[in-house]
Amino acid sequence: MTDFDDCLARGSHRFAGEIPGRMIGAPRLRGMPNLILHSDRALPSDPTTRGFAREIYQGIRELPIISMHGHVPVEWFADDTPFSDPAALLVTPDHYLMRMLISQGRTTLSDLGVASVDGDRAPEADPRAIWRRFCENWHLFRGTPTRFWMEHELVEIFGVTQRPSAETSDAIYDRIAAAIADPAFRPRTLMDRFNIEVIGTTDPAWASLEHHRKLAEEGWGERILPTFRPDPVLALDNPSFTHDVLATGLAAGVDVVDYKTYLDALRAQRLRFKAAGALATDHGPNLADTTPMADSDAARLFDAAFNGRPVTAAEARAFNAHMLFQMALMATEDGLVMQIHPGVERGHDRAITATYGPDKGYDIPFAVEYNRALRPMLEAFGHHPNFRTIVFTIDEDVYSRELAPMAGVYPAMRLGAPWWFIDSPEGMRRFRETATETAGFYNTSGFVDDTRAYCSIPARHDLARRIDAGFLARLVAEHRLDIDEAHETARDLAYHLPLLSYAKN
Amino acid sequence: MTDFDDCLARGSHRFAGEIPGRMIGAPRLRGMPNLILHSDRALPSDPTTRGFAREIYQGIRELPIISMHGHVPVEWFADDTPFSDPAALLVTPDHYLMRMLISQGRTTLSDLGVASVDGDRAPEADPRAIWRRFCENWHLFRGTPTRFWMEHELVEIFGVTQRPSAETSDAIYDRIAAAIADPAFRPRTLMDRFNIEVIGTTDPAWASLEHHRKLAEEGWGERILPTFRPDPVLALDNPSFTHDVLATGLAAGVDVVDYKTYLDALRAQRLRFKAAGALATDHGPNLADTTPMADSDAARLFDAAFNGRPVTAAEARAFNAHMLFQMALMATEDGLVMQIHPGVERGHDRAITATYGPDKGYDIPFAVEYNRALRPMLEAFGHHPNFRTIVFTIDEDVYSRELAPMAGVYPAMRLGAPWWFIDSPEGMRRFRETATETAGFYNTSGFVDDTRAYCSIPARHDLARRIDAGFLARLVAEHRLDIDEAHETARDLAYHLPLLSYAKN
Amino acid sequence: MTDFDDCLARGSHRFAGEIPGRMIGAPRLRGMPNLILHSDRALPSDPTTRGFAREIYQGIRELPIISMHGHVPVEWFADDTPFSDPAALLVTPDHYLMRMLISQGRTTLSDLGVASVDGDRAPEADPRAIWRRFCENWHLFRGTPTRFWMEHELVEIFGVTQRPSAETSDAIYDRIAAAIADPAFRPRTLMDRFNIEVIGTTDPAWASLEHHRKLAEEGWGERILPTFRPDPVLALDNPSFTHDVLATGLAAGVDVVDYKTYLDALRAQRLRFKAAGALATDHGPNLADTTPMADSDAARLFDAAFNGRPVTAAEARAFNAHMLFQMALMATEDGLVMQIHPGVERGHDRAITATYGPDKGYDIPFAVEYNRALRPMLEAFGHHPNFRTIVFTIDEDVYSRELAPMAGVYPAMRLGAPWWFIDSPEGMRRFRETATETAGFYNTSGFVDDTRAYCSIPARHDLARRIDAGFLARLVAEHRLDIDEAHETARDLAYHLPLLSYAKN
Repeated sequence: MTDFDDCLARGSHRFAGEIPGRMIGAPRLRGMPNLILHSDRALPSDPTTRGFAREIYQGIRELPIISMHGHVPVEWFADDTPFSDPAALLVTPDHYLMRMLISQGRTTLSDLGVASVDGDRAPEADPRAIWRRFCENWHLFRGTPTRFWMEHELVEIFGVTQRPSAETSDAIYDRIAAAIADPAFRPRTLMDRFNIEVIGTTDPAWASLEHHRKLAEEGWGERILPTFRPDPVLALDNPSFTHDVLATGLAAGVDVVDYKTYLDALRAQRLRFKAAGALATDHGPNLADTTPMADSDAARLFDAAFNGRPVTAAEARAFNAHMLFQMALMATEDGLVMQIHPGVERGHDRAITATYGPDKGYDIPFAVEYNRALRPMLEAFGHHPNFRTIVFTIDEDVYSRELAPMAGVYPAMRLGAPWWFIDSPEGMRRFRETATETAGFYNTSGFVDDTRAYCSIPARHDLARRIDAGFLARLVAEHRLDIDEAHETARDLAYHLPLLSYAKN
Repeated sequence: MTDFDDCLARGSHRFAGEIPGRMIGAPRLRGMPNLILHSDRALPSDPTTRGFAREIYQGIRELPIISMHGHVPVEWFADDTPFSDPAALLVTPDHYLMRMLISQGRTTLSDLGVASVDGDRAPEADPRAIWRRFCENWHLFRGTPTRFWMEHELVEIFGVTQRPSAETSDAIYDRIAAAIADPAFRPRTLMDRFNIEVIGTTDPAWASLEHHRKLAEEGWGERILPTFRPDPVLALDNPSFTHDVLATGLAAGVDVVDYKTYLDALRAQRLRFKAAGALATDHGPNLADTTPMADSDAARLFDAAFNGRPVTAAEARAFNAHMLFQMALMATEDGLVMQIHPGVERGHDRAITATYGPDKGYDIPFAVEYNRALRPMLEAFGHHPNFRTIVFTIDEDVYSRELAPMAGVYPAMRLGAPWWFIDSPEGMRRFRETATETAGFYNTSGFVDDTRAYCSIPARHDLARRIDAGFLARLVAEHRLDIDEAHETARDLAYHLPLLSYAKN
Repeated sequence: MTDFDDCLARGSHRFAGEIPGRMIGAPRLRGMPNLILHSDRALPSDPTTRGFAREIYQGIRELPIISMHGHVPVEWFADDTPFSDPAALLVTPDHYLMRMLISQGRTTLSDLGVASVDGDRAPEADPRAIWRRFCENWHLFRGTPTRFWMEHELVEIFGVTQRPSAETSDAIYDRIAAAIADPAFRPRTLMDRFNIEVIGTTDPAWASLEHHRKLAEEGWGERILPTFRPDPVLALDNPSFTHDVLATGLAAGVDVVDYKTYLDALRAQRLRFKAAGALATDHGPNLADTTPMADSDAARLFDAAFNGRPVTAAEARAFNAHMLFQMALMATEDGLVMQIHPGVERGHDRAITATYGPDKGYDIPFAVEYNRALRPMLEAFGHHPNFRTIVFTIDEDVYSRELAPMAGVYPAMRLGAPWWFIDSPEGMRRFRETATETAGFYNTSGFVDDTRAYCSIPARHDLARRIDAGFLARLVAEHRLDIDEAHETARDLAYHLPLLSYAKN
């Protein structure tokens, strides 16, 4: 792919004269600037507002972390194995980071250590080379949340003092490698160092929960909780639907033969999750639709898909909506909090997904309707004392128009924190600006992260606290809130609301 | 519904150790902080900008209020009766306020004094208890416009000096009750105290206008104007369509028997409204569509609905679009300004609406297309010298994309102030930021409120003036506007534009 | 159309008492204020941020202008003829400006010198009168980018020192008229004065490119480049489709008789454009859809339209999507960069378009889906080393939801600068705030203007540089970016990225 230097070298730069300024990319940096975390980072710059923001942030920065919507593999905690190398810890599990490197056309997923599904493409085997690809492209992350998180991780967790670049790559690699060789860097020990009070893992509907059982036996059952994620067993167009449903039945001890036993298996597995400490279920449907269908129709569609007969895309969508409604119904019985986050086309480039598998950075959001979609569920259970749903979105456009108005009246609904691409400084600021006036602070979930990147969790919570402190500070500076109220609200957003939002059962 | 304290009490808080920070809710407040209105509230905090904002605001703060889109019942003015109690004055008519209390699941509409339609559920009879439910949940309103308005009302109108809370509830109640017992607190006297030059009421198409006649006889005809609101008689799916149409005919002195006489009745009633001082009509359709149909089709559909024969939802929608076009056509004849604000699903929870009636806080916006929807009306009448339409929206997303570009070229169209949930500090700021660059200031209506809460009108105008002053101040501080221009524009937005926007006839 | 004064004069202002404040419009201005460009204009007002912004802006303000997406007529450069008068130079070619004057209902396109298509309506013949209509409505442009650009042009290019108004109109007219009479004010000389390194023109698919040949012969071939704009020959519903296709074939030396020869002609013309210096193609489809169809279907539809047989609207849309895919395929062969900007209903008022022709200010945006629309093209060519597409939008709503996520992973895609109505201070600021966190800076095109108004080009680039400097300054002030990085990024956005974005071939 063309780079400015190539372009010059090839003579295709047709414009005469000296090139003003410096060129694009890392080599232009003179020397090796220090990497320093300023104590006021991500706080507003206006001096009045910053003063209040600093004060508010100080009151919350050391609060424990509640991390109920995470995707760190439970095995990491169950086995408490050391991390292998800096690239495997920080680059390969982070699809934000990989997608940015890919976007410039000079790097492939193979170059970043991702194995192809069929094993035909040899991934980069040298973690040091992977790490260098990241460091020499550090400038690409300017203005992104990855930059903020990674800086935080490098300085706070690993004691790195140099800005990443081609020149500093090896030294930083060595420093991180040395850190993770230390037994103090095992996943469980980091729980305390990271000040994580409780963390949720995401577990498939058919999970045996053996890892969580082991954790409970070893005294971690109160802090590492499973989360029930049934997407594949609610999607009739899932190619392994029958297999996944049977596996769920097996785990639940229910012999699934039809729609009724399928519901029994789901109900039973939810209870097994709850017994293992789960507080919530997690749903990532394509659309937000929760319209139920007649049981007889649902049974007929289930039978078709379960027995390998064709089901149309429209039927699969309708069944999915029906099953979201059923999940809400079950939630009124078992009290598991229902997290919903629709609106992402997973694996936008199907050839990439076929080659490398899912979750590689090619997931692209689209517009989703919420008003009519959530109506059946909210009309049925929106005032149920035992039901809570937390709705996350990646489409900012719906905050002021649909989600905040609904969360601002239905007792069962909480508005989740800005999700995925908008879990970012500007995204979180806009969220407070667009949602608060209609939903208030107390119909939001407080900060909820969503990541596979374990080491980024403290950075993400720290950033959210800074942004919330900044927003509250502006309200104080504009005499729209008193400072004691701002302090209290900040603590509620950082700690009490995430805790209470998941405490329905 | 679970509260943090309950949660602790029930032992379901599984996380060990002391709870950091304080808990959610009002009881945590130490002492009873004063309620003070800072003179710079809602102005930008940056010192340069604030200086300009203060100066600009000073130039407009005492301008009279033009309130042409209100929903205060005309009876309040016609009878000039005293208000009964603080809850009936400030809580029960305010669906912003009720919805927030309901959203936390600890309060029902009955608890707030709302009677059920069938009379089966006894509403809370003690206004003091209703008032306390509001005061003890004061923290829920942090960051909302209700907080700003209510603070303004409590301090400026009632002289309250304590922040609402469970502890201060009774004292505040007593203070307000004493105030409204004073004859100076009658609706008409408040018109002057509130500095309202002119106020519009909203009246159904079939209104006899007797209250307005009485007001005119008593010298208030120039200041309290009716507004023609024909939504129910344009909606074939309105269950009482025939009844409402006949009532309209009766009021107009037209014997409605078919589509032609139906149009005659509407035309005649518009003129009766105009004769009674009306300057505008008000339309809240579901969609913005203004596509006309053939008269023969319209006549056929009218006949069907009028005679109780079934009409499909699509037919009702098409007829509604056709009738909006007819309303625009009539407006070119009588000069009544046509206010349109689509895009809200009224009564989102149908069980609540069935139990308590409409306008109880369960109205949820949705996305509406404007470009193609308004095209027939604008192509037909967009350059007509006698036509003006003011378009309001609750969907901010369309300001920069559709509404500002249309208002920025069609002479007949003005962009209304941010409506409903976005009649708020952040909403109004974003409106100026997204609409001004394409529509300019002079294709907007200036500030137009929309409320049943009479006492909130001065607060709403004050807030709008502060936000506009802040926006103009930023333009000045960034050297994008001179200070004399900012002063003049501020006066135009606060006073001249609302006046002139409704002065077509 | 009613003005406040008329309103008073006619006695229709029903509200008694003295009118507070001054009235709407220009006559109220006391004296004739100076027109001064403040060196800090459009920079943030917070002192900390402004300091950084000033420093960053200083580093880029004199960089040459890359203007690859312009619509200045190539004849202006080929003939290098003097401009006729101030109105013809500054008012009539600027649809932003005309639409605002029209929007208040006191001015028509004829009044602004626009001739009707049929010649039936005599346009205003006196350029001085046209100029006055603009000057006396100067207040309408407050808060708009036109105000910023025009101020810049008047002061920097023409040395005007008075604010436009009815009183100053003639003096300003005379000053501009004198300036453009000077030979130094010819189009080519201005290229250097404006510091434009390279400018693109927009040329139809059937262009003979004779003007560009002349320019090349006279040494301007490296700086004035054609751009291939094939919209009319990709639209089966274009009334002159057959004619335009035949003209394209003629220019290309290809005898078009069917779908295959049609593709041959397009391919050949692209290469002729490339040989004449073109770096890019430019596409303004209604929708963003890029779904290909079977060649046999495409051939059948082409044959129908080419031979004057009816084609449905849906077929025309599908063919257009297919042809965008074909354009992308050809781009992988010839390396021309593919610019796409959909989502505008051209000629919203069809009567105006019929009377005055296209591009008169009546183009209104609408919502367009990008996720599924661009998928076929991006799946096929999104990783092709020879392909680049720059996607522009006028719908801000899609930046954070769709476009930034796609540009942030597909190597072939760059996110274009905010387009048309959002090429504005607030629009550009919001663009950086909503796109950067997901796409980064380096997956954007840098600043690209889009205008027929030649004299506004320096003003537009200056404004973009100020806004980018302000955004980067905020990142520095909030300790989210180091100052050396901000300097480098600013230079890349202003110069290197626009250059490199168009340097694929």
